[in-house]
Order: sequence, then structure tokens, then C-alpha cells
Amino acid sequence: MNFCAVSGSDKERAVVGLGLVGVGRMGALHGHLVASRLETARIVAVADPEETLAAPLSEELGSKVYGDASALLRDPEVEAIIIATPPRTHCVLIKAAAAAGKHVFCEKPIGWDLSEIDETLAEVERSQIKLQIGFNRRFDASFGKAQKMVAAGKIGTPLSVHLIGWDPIAERPRGREDGDIFLDTTIHDLDMARFVLNSEPTSVYAQGGVMAEERLDDPDTVVTTVRFESGATAVIDNSRLSTHGYDQRLEVFGAEGILAVANEQPHRVSAASASGVVDAGPQPFFTERYLDSYVEELRSFVECVSGDREPEVTGRDGRAATAMAWACVRSYRESRPVELSEIDGA
Amino acid sequence: MNFCAVSGSDKERAVVGLGLVGVGRMGALHGHLVASRLETARIVAVADPEETLAAPLSEELGSKVYGDASALLRDPEVEAIIIATPPRTHCVLIKAAAAAGKHVFCEKPIGWDLSEIDETLAEVERSQIKLQIGFNRRFDASFGKAQKMVAAGKIGTPLSVHLIGWDPIAERPRGREDGDIFLDTTIHDLDMARFVLNSEPTSVYAQGGVMAEERLDDPDTVVTTVRFESGATAVIDNSRLSTHGYDQRLEVFGAEGILAVANEQPHRVSAASASGVVDAGPQPFFTERYLDSYVEELRSFVECVSGDREPEVTGRDGRAATAMAWACVRSYRESRPVELSEIDGA
Amino acid sequence: MNFCAVSGSDKERAVVGLGLVGVGRMGALHGHLVASRLETARIVAVADPEETLAAPLSEELGSKVYGDASALLRDPEVEAIIIATPPRTHCVLIKAAAAAGKHVFCEKPIGWDLSEIDETLAEVERSQIKLQIGFNRRFDASFGKAQKMVAAGKIGTPLSVHLIGWDPIAERPRGREDGDIFLDTTIHDLDMARFVLNSEPTSVYAQGGVMAEERLDDPDTVVTTVRFESGATAVIDNSRLSTHGYDQRLEVFGAEGILAVANEQPHRVSAASASGVVDAGPQPFFTERYLDSYVEELRSFVECVSGDREPEVTGRDGRAATAMAWACVRSYRESRPVELSEIDGA
Amino acid sequence: MNFCAVSGSDKERAVVGLGLVGVGRMGALHGHLVASRLETARIVAVADPEETLAAPLSEELGSKVYGDASALLRDPEVEAIIIATPPRTHCVLIKAAAAAGKHVFCEKPIGWDLSEIDETLAEVERSQIKLQIGFNRRFDASFGKAQKMVAAGKIGTPLSVHLIGWDPIAERPRGREDGDIFLDTTIHDLDMARFVLNSEPTSVYAQGGVMAEERLDDPDTVVTTVRFESGATAVIDNSRLSTHGYDQRLEVFGAEGILAVANEQPHRVSAASASGVVDAGPQPFFTERYLDSYVEELRSFVECVSGDREPEVTGRDGRAATAMAWACVRSYRESRPVELSEIDGA
Repeated sequence: MNFCAVSGSDKERAVVGLGLVGVGRMGALHGHLVASRLETARIVAVADPEETLAAPLSEELGSKVYGDASALLRDPEVEAIIIATPPRTHCVLIKAAAAAGKHVFCEKPIGWDLSEIDETLAEVERSQIKLQIGFNRRFDASFGKAQKMVAAGKIGTPLSVHLIGWDPIAERPRGREDGDIFLDTTIHDLDMARFVLNSEPTSVYAQGGVMAEERLDDPDTVVTTVRFESGATAVIDNSRLSTHGYDQRLEVFGAEGILAVANEQPHRVSAASASGVVDAGPQPFFTERYLDSYVEELRSFVECVSGDREPEVTGRDGRAATAMAWACVRSYRESRPVELSEIDGA
Repeated sequence: MNFCAVSGSDKERAVVGLGLVGVGRMGALHGHLVASRLETARIVAVADPEETLAAPLSEELGSKVYGDASALLRDPEVEAIIIATPPRTHCVLIKAAAAAGKHVFCEKPIGWDLSEIDETLAEVERSQIKLQIGFNRRFDASFGKAQKMVAAGKIGTPLSVHLIGWDPIAERPRGREDGDIFLDTTIHDLDMARFVLNSEPTSVYAQGGVMAEERLDDPDTVVTTVRFESGATAVIDNSRLSTHGYDQRLEVFGAEGILAVANEQPHRVSAASASGVVDAGPQPFFTERYLDSYVEELRSFVECVSGDREPEVTGRDGRAATAMAWACVRSYRESRPVELSEIDGA
Repeated sequence: MNFCAVSGSDKERAVVGLGLVGVGRMGALHGHLVASRLETARIVAVADPEETLAAPLSEELGSKVYGDASALLRDPEVEAIIIATPPRTHCVLIKAAAAAGKHVFCEKPIGWDLSEIDETLAEVERSQIKLQIGFNRRFDASFGKAQKMVAAGKIGTPLSVHLIGWDPIAERPRGREDGDIFLDTTIHDLDMARFVLNSEPTSVYAQGGVMAEERLDDPDTVVTTVRFESGATAVIDNSRLSTHGYDQRLEVFGAEGILAVANEQPHRVSAASASGVVDAGPQPFFTERYLDSYVEELRSFVECVSGDREPEVTGRDGRAATAMAWACVRSYRESRPVELSEIDGA
Repeated sequence: MNFCAVSGSDKERAVVGLGLVGVGRMGALHGHLVASRLETARIVAVADPEETLAAPLSEELGSKVYGDASALLRDPEVEAIIIATPPRTHCVLIKAAAAAGKHVFCEKPIGWDLSEIDETLAEVERSQIKLQIGFNRRFDASFGKAQKMVAAGKIGTPLSVHLIGWDPIAERPRGREDGDIFLDTTIHDLDMARFVLNSEPTSVYAQGGVMAEERLDDPDTVVTTVRFESGATAVIDNSRLSTHGYDQRLEVFGAEGILAVANEQPHRVSAASASGVVDAGPQPFFTERYLDSYVEELRSFVECVSGDREPEVTGRDGRAATAMAWACVRSYRESRPVELSEIDGA
């Protein structure tokens, strides 16, 4: 049964002790989900420089609280950490965890500078810690199933893939830079395209712009095409201007058929009248749409830690998607297709 | 956010102490859901004559365990009980709870004999306890929304309602009697028809039979029509022979439009090939389909207890649906339409 | 290619000469469709007492015109007739055609009184003419395919069938009598249920009423259940109060799966906004929904005439559906289930 | 009623005499549709150098036959011509028709060389003949409705548009050159994108390749992105490798909602079993999908001729789509985005 079971046999199973670093929106989400939905792990400590956020969360979770990550990493109860801090701090934290011999689940993107990411991955390899990157959509029931079906050859060779990721109009995040949409939003779709096509990208071409006047720097609507070594093309639509909900779709065209992931809906009620049939649109936002996938990615990570197997989303995956995102940024800024080799050589 | 939150402000809110009577499939389900999903209540005690079931559940839930309900009802920590025992025991337990001044959430059906139910309801009224019956589908996001839309006049006067409740082929429950399908399965749809139409039934006509040869006594496939005072007709399809999943649908035809509740699906992946487009069928079974509604009915009950308001599904609702189910049994056995007045006078 | 081809090879094929008797709505429809869509036949003569209607139609079709059917039946160019007159005249015309040795395509119902129908069928058999009844839905791409799939065992033994036939609010036909809805509208669904289940009916139960106040005699909304010898049950919904279009659906529940026919739509455009996703409702009326099936039933009839094979919808089918409709009338009037044997013995 | 009516009032209306030039697949299609579905025009003459094709068609249509177009253009019964010859001959024929003062309906593309097209358009303007280009999809019930809804502001400013045009694997047309897919197939989508966005293109980027090994020269699968002056982006998917039918879809993402055109289906039957729900895929090919739109574009053209109004698809539209297609060819060959200005200056 897929509900929050508290079954007897769990008692005997060792529960993995997790440290949570960063208690913003994503950190709090991970913390709450571990507490309520994951019987195989618990948050034993949280760390955040913002004590006003960390204290109440630690109280709710019944965990210790640390002002900084170094102290948390020294806690012997902490077997692994969840990193949910701003992207530019990720690599430093991963390296510190590697030095401390603690496993790491890190939110996307894995880091900011590719050279720092490369150094970090070398440290991870040396230390033999497990590192999993937070591409949660791979663990979504529908996206995950679609990838498995493609991998099983159900539609033959994939020839093209379309991804739609249209977000509802939201508050403008503070401090956006030109191109952030690619590292924040498109990166999920870049990873999914690479995951589904099972091929490495060769070039990207990102077009778009600021379509809503009041948003002046970072583009709010972009269309990205990616060419892959296999010859397949991916098309990714992203926008922050969606008025009809959190629209998340996938379609793969293959030599022997097509596969599609439709939107999930908040309910299944339709109403027909003289003006047509009205069905529910997509879920309102990512927490409704992807909640289960956040539980599943952590469940999988915890199994890697306790069962000593390799994570399903590796540091190399995190590095690849970040390189693709940087290629998108350059393509968008320079209005031309950009080869991945231009970025990798940077 | 609709996930299992453990929020700071809950700390101050009084958590309602629940006693769970009966630890079979439904009792265990309620117990686990209270533990993992309901921050406003906790199971403080369980009672079941079958100690081999009660002991491990109480251990998981961290609750006391009693061999019988009387002891549990004397526990001052128990403010309200959940009754999940066999139907013939419901009335005795409700009366005992009323005598002890404990509120009651009782699984459907409210009881077995209508006269015993009437006595019980009189006791409930005298004692002023809250009594809620487990018609969980009223709390389902889709069915609940459909009823609200009808009540708000979105489709004008409802003229007819169709309900489909086709269950997957399952193990045969032990000790089925001829007609049990109506008190066990159809009763949910009878309640939903009455809820959506907001009218009282006048007659029922239940047709069907044993369509799978190996199942000899209780019909496995029935079609029930119900006439209501408003002039509307309800048609209810039930079967235990569904091979395509747990098919749960509603359609209301009104003077100004129609409303429909479609099946929920386990995923949103479709695959197109030369042989057509394959989509997911319904959820596999009731736990997947209705899990959230079980949480929501208990959340609502707990709010009634702590906030001193009347339950949304009353003892009178429980009584009405049971009378309808008995009318179905008689109609099926006698192959004729049966007036509700024939049953009420029994 | 399924368009109106005028192919060279048709030249050699003999074109069947048809006489059209009755030039009301249905007669004019058949006439126009033969002219524009059926390369294998042509209307050589029309007959109607209402000359003001017959004359312009005959001019459009380039056919002769007769004031009465007897004259038309004597025309040697007429090989077969289409009867599209009021139901009470059908049997007299069929008998006259049989006497004249002309084949007959007759609109539903085959006749009015069952005893007159029986006499007529005896004449038809004696004369060896072909007789096809206008249950056009059997020739619809979707309904026809569904029946073939059931017959081929795709869903195992059919256990129940649901038919929805909700018509848009229309002008009230003049001279409606109490129960006409069953002989005019429900009769299509009664035939379809019998066709799909491939079993003979044993009893019917028709409930409903006049739900729109201004319509006082004939019920506008009915729910009919039919029991069949196979043990299966059919449920038929009919109403003249549909506000959302011409709603025509079928669902068959079988021991190994279900089959459904969804509504056809006038277009495939959907629009999503914050208030949901709006799709097209059903087609507006029967001409849009069933036009092709009218062409196909006549094409099939013409093939029977020219190729000397038996019609797919026989006089016996017409008789069976009419008997079912009369059982519905009696059931509705007497508020009780009616056995077919009560009607057949009448 | 939307069927092939032969109504009395048509008699008075003048019927436009059409000459059909070219009797290959498209010419024969137009000829048959005029004969069977268009009461406002008739084919009075056909011309084709291939007499073995022209003679039988002229016999079927009851029209004269000419060995070359010049003779046909001299026929005083011919008021307008339909050009359905190979693309490289279009401009010569249009100019001849202009010289003869005959109106022209010309299949897409309007011509081959842009400079020849420009000369031709100048002749057309001088002669004041009507010229309509065969972008039939503009007249499709669904695509046409979608464009009207966008134009009416139903989804606010359009931000991006997606078009899918995946064709079933077909015989390889003889003599394909590298890039023909753009002038033959993509050109429909290029026109539709420009039509729906109501903006002029600025650049295109066409990627793809030969994905099926046995097809060596012209790409079989391409993804084209087009930037428009409005800032919107169009993405067009074309392939000749579709195994699931003739897949034709549109989706427009706007600042206030989205609009989508789904596939039409050959039937509306679905079957549910343990392996899911199987629905009909798209129509098998373009004749089934777009037949009505071919009738409607000709009906509209005939109204322009008889009613002296301007065609809805102009020579300028034909020129614009052809220029876009040539930009795609160059972009594909040179693997880079191509500005429309590069083509227009050629």
C-alpha cells in the first residue's frame, strides 16, 4: 500500500540519520517529507545560518540544530546530509561532506562553476561517498515510467523529445540574473531529455525573451532545442507566465510509436454545458505535482546509503545538466547555437 | 501545502485522543493514517479480541492495547472512538460509547437491523455525542467537488445520476450471504446518490445475478435503480468482476448541463502506436483511489470533536443508506421494485 | 478513400432505381444523401400526398413525382422503395411493396401494432422481397465497431450495457402521446442493446417523468432497464432536455474488459485557462452525428438488392425493438416491470 | 445541415465553371470533390499532358478534356482554374491564366524560385485576377477555429506555437532532393504558424536528419524553430516515419492561456482491460483528416470568384511560406540559423 505506513518490520531496519543543511523552501520541504513519509530515515540535525528559520524547524522535527554545516558534519549521528542551500555554496558543502566521510543528497544544480564542479567530483570519487543530485522528476511515477518504457524499446529509437515546463506567474525571485531561468528551471528538462534519450548532447540553441514588460532582465519565456549524439533533437519550452497552472508534459517521438506524459490534475470532475466540456487543468504548483517524487528520490538515496549501492542520479548527471544549462545561457545571450564543447573547454 | 505537515502551531492545538476498536483491514488503515497523516489526533488505545493483531498494531502506533472495547471506553485519554469491527457489532459499540460519553466515528454500515439502528440513534441523541459514519467518498476531492457543484446549481435541477462501482476480482470474503453486496458495496453509491440529489429515496429496483459460475450465492454483478422524491432516478452499477481496475465514476444529468467524475489513474503516461493510444486505466484498488478521503473524513470528524460542530455525515445518513440497501436486498430476492416504506415499516 | 467518389468502374455497375415514399425531414434527408453520396443508386421517383413538398424535391433530384405510393410502386424503374412516412402507415406500404415485388427500406419503427407487423412480416416472407429497417446506428463507425468487438469476444461475456441518448431541447413535435418517446427515441437504444448483447429481452422497467413543467403529457426524461436472456442488464437513458448537445454514448461491461463509445465532437480545439480546460461537447444534433451512418445503411441495403443478400437489419429486428418499446410504454404507464411475454401475447 | 445538399435555390445561383490543370493525386481529389460536394461550381474542363489520366477523369466528371493548359485557358466556359501540377510549373501557369483573365486556385507551393514568384505576383496584380493558394488547413474546422480564437484575443498575446505534422511511412516520392520535405510538408506548418501568430518571420533554424537508414538524401525527421517579429517562437515537428497515424496537432501558448488542436480520430471507441485503456489514434492519412478542408477552401475560392471578394489565402501568403521553406532548406544544409533577409535578398 502506498500510504504512510508505520510497519512493524521497520523497527528492526536501521533508520538512517540525516543532517539537513539549508532550511529555505526546499530544505523545509525535504525535512517535513522525511518526518512524515519516510520510515527509513530521520532528520537528526539541521543547520542554517538563519537561526530564526532553523530553530522552529528543528523543534518540529525533534532534531538538533547547528549554526553551521561544519558542526553538523562532525555529529556522529549524521550519516548523510541533504544540501538545500543556494547553488553557489553546493560544491563547498559537498567537498566538506566528502572530507567528513558523509554521504550527500544535493539539490540541483550540483554547483555553479564547471571547474569547481569537476574538482568536487574528483573529491567525491576519492572519498567514496555516495552523491545523489536532486533531479526529482526521474522519480515521478509518470516521467519515470515513460523513461523506462523508452529504455525498454517500446517506441523504438527515440527521434525527438518535447518537454513543456510552464510555471504559474509567481513572485519574482530576488536577484535574478540574465540566464538564471536555464540554471533554475530548464535544467530539470535538460536532465530529463538526456535521461530519456540516453545520449549525450552536442549543441543547444536557446531562444526567447522577456515577454512580460515588467520583468526586465531574465527571460520569462524560452524555447530551447538540443541536439544529441544519437541524432535526436529535444525541444524544451519554459515560461514563468503560465496562467492555466503548472504545466508539465513530455512527449517522445520514436521510430515505432510515441509516448506522452500528460498533466496531473487536482481533481477528475468535468462539467458539460452549451459552452463545452470543462475539465480540470494542471496542478497549481510543483508541491502538488511532484510531492511524491521528492519522497521517492530521498527513499532511493537512503537505500543507496544503507544498502551500499550507487545513486540513480549521479554527480556526472548533475555536471552534464549544468554544462547544458550554461550552454543555454551563452546561446541565449549570443543568439546562436552553442556547441557543448565550447562550454566544456571553458 | 497538502503534504504531511508537522507545523509549529500544531503544538499548541490540543491533539484529540482516539481509541481504535477493531484492527482488521479497515481498522489498521485508519490507525496508520491517523499516525502518519493527521497532525490533529493520535491513537491512544486499540482494542480487539484478536490479540495477535492488536498487539503489533499498538506497538507500531505507540498506543495502549485492550482486549475489549469496554476497557478502552473507560480510558480517560480516549475522547472518541473509531469503530472498525464487523457490521453486526456496530450498534452495541455505539451505544456503549454513548453511555460512556465518547464520540464515535463508525465504519459503514452504521448497523445491521434497522430497529436496532433506531434505538442506537435515540441513545446517541440523548447522550449528545457526535456520531459520524464512514462514507468516505463524500470527502474525496472529486466526488466532494461534484456534489458541491450540483448543490450550487451549476447544472440546474439534477434529473438523473449514474454511479459506477466495479471492483477488481478479489478473494471471496468468507461467509457472504445472498445480498451482502448491497450492504457492503452498493451502500456507498446509495449514500452518494442521496447526497448528490439531496432528496429522499422512494423505491429501489435491483437486478443482477451471479455471472461468474464459481461464485454461487451472493450476486457478483448488480444494476440498481433508485427513484427519489424529486422525480430523479439514480442508476448504480456494481460488480466484483472488474478486470480493468477499480472503476469508480459518477455522472449527473441536470436540466442545465452534466457533471462527471472520471477515474483517477495511477500514472499519466500514454503510448501511441499503430494499434491505437494506450492510456492508464483506473487505480488498482480502493486504498490507492480513496486514501486521501479516509484522511479527510477523520480530519473532519476530529474537527467536530474538538470544535464542537456537527458531523458532515450523520447517523441519519447512515440509517438512510442502510434502509436503501435492505430495500435492494429484498428487491433482488423478490425480483420486483421495493418501496422504501415497505422497509421502514419492517 | 472515403469521399464522394465518382469512379470509372461505377459506370459498368448497375445503378439501383429507388422510389422515395414520404418527403418529410427523414425522406428529404435520404433523398439528398442518395443523390450526393451514393454512387450505386439513384432516386427515380418520389411520392407524397403533400405535393408542395414532393414537387421541389423531385426537381432537385431529377426524379419523377407521384401523388401516391401505389403509382410509384407500379413504375418499372423503381426496384426498391424507401419508406419515410409516419409510423402508422409503414405496414400498409410494406405490404403493398411486397405485393408489387419491390424491395423495402423502411424507417423505424417498422410499424405500430404488433399484430399488423406480424401479418406484414408474413407477407414479406411470402413475397421474398428484401426488407431492411432503419436502425442506422448499427452502421455508425463507432457503434458498429463496438458491436463487432463484443461479438469477437474482445471483452468476454457482456454483463451489462449502458446507452445514453440525450437530445437537445427541441420544438415539441405535434400530437405526442404519452409514451411516444419510447417508440421514437428509446427504440434506437433498445435495438442497439439487443444488437450488442446478442440476446433476447425478457423484461423492461421504464421510469421517468415530465421534468420540464411546460411539457405535460409525454415524459421528457426516462431511464429504462432491460433484462436479457443471457442474464445481462441494459440501462438506457433518454431525455429531450439536453442542454450540452446531442449526447450519444455506449458502454459495455464485460467479463474481460469494457468497451465505450464516446461522443463525436464538432471540432478538436481545447482552451486552457485558470478556470480549467474547455473541450468541445457533443455534436449539436443527429444530422451532424449520424450522417455517415445514413449513407452506409442505404449503401448496405442497395448491395442487398443488387447482390441478392439478406439485409443486416431484418424485419424481425424491427419487430423485436417495437415490442420492447411497447413494453416500455406499459411499464412507464403502470410503474412496474413488464415481461416481454405480456406484450407478445397481446 | 452540413451534408451534400442539392437545394432548390442553388438552381438560380450561377454555377462557376472551373478548369482543372493537372490530374495527379491532388488534381483528381479536387475534381472529385467539386463534383460531389460543391454545388456552387463544376469542372467544365480538365487538362493534362498525360492523356491516359485525363481522359477517364474527364469522363467521370462529364467535362471536356484538353491536352494542354493553353487550350483550356481559351475555353470561354472556364472562369477560373485549379492548378495541381508539379510546383516548378506553377508560376508559368499562373502567368498564363493572368494573361487570359482567368482566376486561379493554385496548390502549394505557389512556385519554386522566389524571383519568378515575385514576377508572377506582379502579373497577378496587373491583371486583377483572384489568386488563392492551397493552404487548406486554414479552412479546417479545428485549425481555423483555433486561429480565430487567437485573433479574438482568447489567450492574450501568443508567446509560442507548436505544430506537429508527422506523416505515416509512405512510399518514397520519386526524385526527392535534399530539402524537399520543407517545400512539400513543412510549408503547411510554416504558413499555419505565420497565420496563427499574425506576425512575420525573422529567422529559422531547421535541424534533423535521415533517421531511417534506407532513405538517404532528403531528411525524414526535422525540427524547425522560427522566430517572429512579435518575439514569439514557433516549433514545427515533421517526420515521414510516423507509425501511429497521420498526427496533426497545434498548441499555442499565450499570455492568458493556451489553445490546442488535438488529432481527429477515425472512431470514438475505447477498450479498457488490465493492460490499460486503448483509444483510437489519429486518422490514417491526409485525405481522411483534411477532406472537408479541401471542400471548404474551394467553396471559399468560388465565392471570391462569384462574389468578387479577395481570397483568404493570398499570393503574398504563398510567397511568404515559400521563402520560409527556402530558409529552412538553407538552415538545414548549413546547420545554422538563417535570417529571412538572407533569402529575400537572394
